[in-house]
Amino acid sequence: MNPKQLTQDLQNKLHKEILPTKTLNFQVQDLNKHSLSLTAPLELNINDKGTAFGGSIASLCTITGWSLCWVLSKINSLNSDIVIHKSEMEYLRPVTKDFLATVNFPKEEEVQELILSLKKRKKASLYLEVEISENQKPCVKYYGKYVFILKD
Amino acid sequence: MNPKQLTQDLQNKLHKEILPTKTLNFQVQDLNKHSLSLTAPLELNINDKGTAFGGSIASLCTITGWSLCWVLSKINSLNSDIVIHKSEMEYLRPVTKDFLATVNFPKEEEVQELILSLKKRKKASLYLEVEISENQKPCVKYYGKYVFILKD
Repeated sequence: MNPKQLTQDLQNKLHKEILPTKTLNFQVQDLNKHSLSLTAPLELNINDKGTAFGGSIASLCTITGWSLCWVLSKINSLNSDIVIHKSEMEYLRPVTKDFLATVNFPKEEEVQELILSLKKRKKASLYLEVEISENQKPCVKYYGKYVFILKD
Repeated sequence: MNPKQLTQDLQNKLHKEILPTKTLNFQVQDLNKHSLSLTAPLELNINDKGTAFGGSIASLCTITGWSLCWVLSKINSLNSDIVIHKSEMEYLRPVTKDFLATVNFPKEEEVQELILSLKKRKKASLYLEVEISENQKPCVKYYGKYVFILKD
């Protein structure tokens, strides 16, 4: 993969086609072979306690997982729509600064299984874990089930 | 309770103190003795498929549950902060129009238990279910655990 080009393409995709990611200024911060990170500014995502709004945290985690799926679909030339199906979240500590959500790439065999399943059944699921930390302490844990649906 | 005044106060609280609810134009649609509903416009919360962005849906559900807690704390004069602790979501169908998230008030005995627990332990939890439907069909189910923390 070409991380620089993919980062740019993903950033364009988000801000041009998924409007709230632009409004709340979600930015692709880092993409490498291990993980993908998206960031959000506290200033635009603040709540009544001066910390990050739980809804914006949920939103950033949702799109971070989705973005990893999108990157996977680009790398593997999967012609598929990607939708979120289920999620679970735990808010462990308040987020007090600009925040960064990180998701790791699944193992190669999991990706191969996804591709096979997608080709066979035109649909395949991927479970991802997204985390937001601050000062090396976890603040938010998010688990998302994303579904790839082959386009006609 | 005075639903009209509470609706106005809640709307002010959200748009003045929780900035993304204003940016994404989340509006308090209805408050009655049975339920509370908040709405969001598709136009500001749209994704690449022309349907509602999952992150905005998660955000609206999160704040709808929180808002019910806030209303409960006003009605019962609970001097407490309210935070989201855990959530689970299921996306059953795409949301294709302006969307409305609805949460029912808990039973009176559950409210009384919450108040007692809050007075005893300075902390109490409330589990709420939020739903988004379209054309009488459920699109999203959300379960949130909110924690009330007594202020000093």
